[in-house]
Amino acid sequence: MSRLVMKFGGTSVANLDRIRRVAKRVGVEVARGHEVIVIVSAMSGKTNELVGWVTDAAGPFYDAREYDAVVSSGENVTAGLLALVLQENGIDARSWQGWQVPVMTTSAHSSARIEDIPTDNFDARFAEGMKVAVVAGFQGISPEGRITTLGRGGSDTTAVAFAAAFGAERCDIYTDVDGVYTTDPRITSKARKLDRIAFEEMLELASLGAKVLQTRSVELAMRYKVRLRVLSSFEEMGDNAGTLVCAEEDIMESNVVAGVAFSRDEAKMTLVSVADRPGVSAAIFGPLSEAAVNVDMIVQNIAEDGRTDMTFSLPVDQVARAQKAMEEAKAAGVINFHDLIADTGVSKVSVVGIGMRSHTGVAARMFKALSDEGINIRVITTSEIKISVLIDRKYMELAVQALHDAFGLESA
Amino acid sequence: MSRLVMKFGGTSVANLDRIRRVAKRVGVEVARGHEVIVIVSAMSGKTNELVGWVTDAAGPFYDAREYDAVVSSGENVTAGLLALVLQENGIDARSWQGWQVPVMTTSAHSSARIEDIPTDNFDARFAEGMKVAVVAGFQGISPEGRITTLGRGGSDTTAVAFAAAFGAERCDIYTDVDGVYTTDPRITSKARKLDRIAFEEMLELASLGAKVLQTRSVELAMRYKVRLRVLSSFEEMGDNAGTLVCAEEDIMESNVVAGVAFSRDEAKMTLVSVADRPGVSAAIFGPLSEAAVNVDMIVQNIAEDGRTDMTFSLPVDQVARAQKAMEEAKAAGVINFHDLIADTGVSKVSVVGIGMRSHTGVAARMFKALSDEGINIRVITTSEIKISVLIDRKYMELAVQALHDAFGLESA
Repeated sequence: MSRLVMKFGGTSVANLDRIRRVAKRVGVEVARGHEVIVIVSAMSGKTNELVGWVTDAAGPFYDAREYDAVVSSGENVTAGLLALVLQENGIDARSWQGWQVPVMTTSAHSSARIEDIPTDNFDARFAEGMKVAVVAGFQGISPEGRITTLGRGGSDTTAVAFAAAFGAERCDIYTDVDGVYTTDPRITSKARKLDRIAFEEMLELASLGAKVLQTRSVELAMRYKVRLRVLSSFEEMGDNAGTLVCAEEDIMESNVVAGVAFSRDEAKMTLVSVADRPGVSAAIFGPLSEAAVNVDMIVQNIAEDGRTDMTFSLPVDQVARAQKAMEEAKAAGVINFHDLIADTGVSKVSVVGIGMRSHTGVAARMFKALSDEGINIRVITTSEIKISVLIDRKYMELAVQALHDAFGLESA
Repeated sequence: MSRLVMKFGGTSVANLDRIRRVAKRVGVEVARGHEVIVIVSAMSGKTNELVGWVTDAAGPFYDAREYDAVVSSGENVTAGLLALVLQENGIDARSWQGWQVPVMTTSAHSSARIEDIPTDNFDARFAEGMKVAVVAGFQGISPEGRITTLGRGGSDTTAVAFAAAFGAERCDIYTDVDGVYTTDPRITSKARKLDRIAFEEMLELASLGAKVLQTRSVELAMRYKVRLRVLSSFEEMGDNAGTLVCAEEDIMESNVVAGVAFSRDEAKMTLVSVADRPGVSAAIFGPLSEAAVNVDMIVQNIAEDGRTDMTFSLPVDQVARAQKAMEEAKAAGVINFHDLIADTGVSKVSVVGIGMRSHTGVAARMFKALSDEGINIRVITTSEIKISVLIDRKYMELAVQALHDAFGLESA
């Protein structure tokens, strides 16, 4: 019998009415003949309440093992309640907490990695007639027998890991959006839901701020070739609902560009006239890393007279920290520059698509579209399937709209 | 090193401030050189919230295994939070959920019995320097690996079971009253807190409605000779705080009567002119038991002409159920009686004391005290250490006061 993994996030299980709606959806898949593993989050708000208590109880340097023991309880409640509602609907179901499966993880509390999910336990139950296993997401058990949690996006990761372990036909991630779009519909009404997107594209979009799926779960899905479907738990189910995130070869005809992503609140920093010698990059980015600055794009100008300009982008709210780190490094004699210029008025816009691998001219088309609108490009970086530019923030919406048009994303 | 078990109920851990106060008390015992096992309940209100969700989700015929999985989460939260606060106070502490200890129970979900608590796990940790083990009360794990809960009074029972398993010097039950009284102080201001009370006496008092300790935990303490102390978590600790519930031989000088208990809302039912033949009692009390009527006192009059009157007491709110059961049994020809008289205006008053075993005349003194006040006795029953009477409800307070005086309970 085919196995299906379904994952429901906090807003989808926020109260009993919504849990009943979830049970109905699960029931439809059972009626279709699937054996279903359902992964649930805590009811929305519950995890924050628990985290609040922990930080109130212990301040910032709490014991992560106790944090995990407390915070994991939210998912346990949802799992039990959903199992009860499924039983009410006449479906053979039971709940499992992480340690009962067991979901075996590392000991890195609050950010544990899943190491193994033995399948014999569920296999035996399914063979006995169980139709649905409801699993508390986001949690596992360490080799020491303590409860662990997986950190941000943990329930998505749990779902993908179960799909991989059980060879599930598909892993459906129910959320509050109905799929992955060519760009944010709030920026242009021409944005179109994608039926399919490749893992690599999804990864680039996720890391660019399209918060539909956690990067980590997409990486895991890609590694184990788990077909992921993102769909809304608030709309009617259809066979073509949502967006399927899948391997490149499962996408027959793909556009050169799948989507246009953006990140609004970026800053650009330039160290003017840095000595161009081996080790200078390490001297600059070492202190920034220690100051927990997330450097994104890096551009180094051509050197003249043994000196160069070094430009990098970073989130706006990390500029002060970065400046401090650079001034201190200068004072300590680690680096030397004439001037430090920060521009906090930029945004990043990117086009992403696996088609770029086989199509040339994508960059030229992008730059022309921006130029036609009179938008000046501050910094450019490229990867195999992505081209990103930094531009003045006031042009961001315009740039997204222009690129969406230029690559014909409105029509499939 | 001596071991101490401390148990804190829901109101004692209702919020973080109270949990901090609990941590302070635990710290005092650690400073005194104890290794401490703390049993905690869920924050007050939390268990009701969880139970409400379960019954909303599943109606009356829910799967008790899922109920237990959901409801047990409340205690887990408190245990983790208390461990964190203790660590903040510099005390080596960690939390344990029932399955981690493990607290091994029967599979009778929602009313499981503790079968075993292996001690090696904690023993090893204490040897490594752990000072406090915080245990989520009320829960355990079944032979099938499912989470169980122990039912009403489960956390008291957990505490006593740990004290027995670890040979604890004492088991301190912190609650919202400061001990066991000679009678309810709301009835007479002369009521006096007892420093010590025997297990047997406590059992009689508990089953009579003095709701300080659950009967079940007292029974367990008696069986394993666990010294139980009941004390308030809202008052200053002193060496003589609370009431010690202990074996008879640990009480040097005991009064003949330890206390006066009462149960206000009783009813009395009489079946007039029942055929007096073998099996008639079974014919009456079988149907009552099936109707879930809690029959307490039973009195049978002397038979005349082969017929007798049968009188029994029961809680007021079960009278309708009892009447229905009796009329149905009569209609079915199972029993035969001329009349059924229900009196819903009675209360039960009892004197309890192990001293009765060696002292005669207690009953006479009791009846005289009531007679002096003009109180008519409706029904009498006696046990080895208790005499109970049913009287008209309007005299209840007066009877309690008179008996409290008659047995000199005001002065130690």
